[in-house]
Amino acid sequence: MMLADEIKNAIRDVYDYPKQGIVFKDITPIFDNPILVRKIAKALTEQFADEKIDAVASIEARGFIFGSVLANELKSRFIPIRKAGKLPYKTRSQSYELEYGTATIEIHDDAIKPGWRVLVHDDLLATGGTASATANLIKSFDGVLAGFSFLINLGFLPGEQKLKNLYGLQPHSLVRY
Amino acid sequence: MMLADEIKNAIRDVYDYPKQGIVFKDITPIFDNPILVRKIAKALTEQFADEKIDAVASIEARGFIFGSVLANELKSRFIPIRKAGKLPYKTRSQSYELEYGTATIEIHDDAIKPGWRVLVHDDLLATGGTASATANLIKSFDGVLAGFSFLINLGFLPGEQKLKNLYGLQPHSLVRY
Repeated sequence: MMLADEIKNAIRDVYDYPKQGIVFKDITPIFDNPILVRKIAKALTEQFADEKIDAVASIEARGFIFGSVLANELKSRFIPIRKAGKLPYKTRSQSYELEYGTATIEIHDDAIKPGWRVLVHDDLLATGGTASATANLIKSFDGVLAGFSFLINLGFLPGEQKLKNLYGLQPHSLVRY
Repeated sequence: MMLADEIKNAIRDVYDYPKQGIVFKDITPIFDNPILVRKIAKALTEQFADEKIDAVASIEARGFIFGSVLANELKSRFIPIRKAGKLPYKTRSQSYELEYGTATIEIHDDAIKPGWRVLVHDDLLATGGTASATANLIKSFDGVLAGFSFLINLGFLPGEQKLKNLYGLQPHSLVRY
């Protein structure tokens, strides 16, 4: 079976989460299968193995799960991107719009050196708000945006096009809906 | 240099976080050093390599970072333990006391099969509240509590003694203060 199909078979649709009318893609059952996890880690790594990645900026909390393994496999640094107030040291923050209201993410103020090639990783690309805010934080350090890595791309939502338009990069994913 | 000293050198003390009077152990600088991260992953893994671990129950969010790598290295399952409302599927929850008020953590209702040997992992052991609540969740499935794994043990706080008293297990850590 193709890896994309194996992953799709493992993903669980949860209806009306986090709110009425949303079908949530639950990746938890993937972690019940260590062999599948290994295949995913290998595939995520291969997409950027030749890109000389200095750091993987991973978005809390689900993005930490494969982001940590990806950084490990790429022998690169791991940078946590967290919700406002969760990082203990001095931070830079970036707000972005949600359907209703705004959200804010933060990065430590000493996380990136100018010129570093930084990869953005999260589990899922939807509207691209968090990924784009992360990209802007990376650029605020004069870091080089090396790419976007996702497990899942919800292709029927505007995230993919948004990231292409704003940064000229085609986001990578292993599964596309 | 001993690994414990290397880790201690990398940890940053942040004063008055999350509140006045607390000295927070910030592990972020560790992730700036991929070679040190590899050593830590290896050391965490070696502590449980012969324990036939079926699953690593990792506590959100910092616990996901090494928990994910640890599960990978042990070729075991990864189980996310999250704050209330963060897991999409049916859950079991456990509340525990904080200095003021209570906190609640959750696990998916199908996360563990009876008899599985489950390791609890988090970055830091302090009062043991979260670790103990996680242990109770594991036991509610008739899972076997295989051990406690931490990067840091704040030995001057009651967590270590609490886990020993309640579960008869000496928590493992790489650094003790």
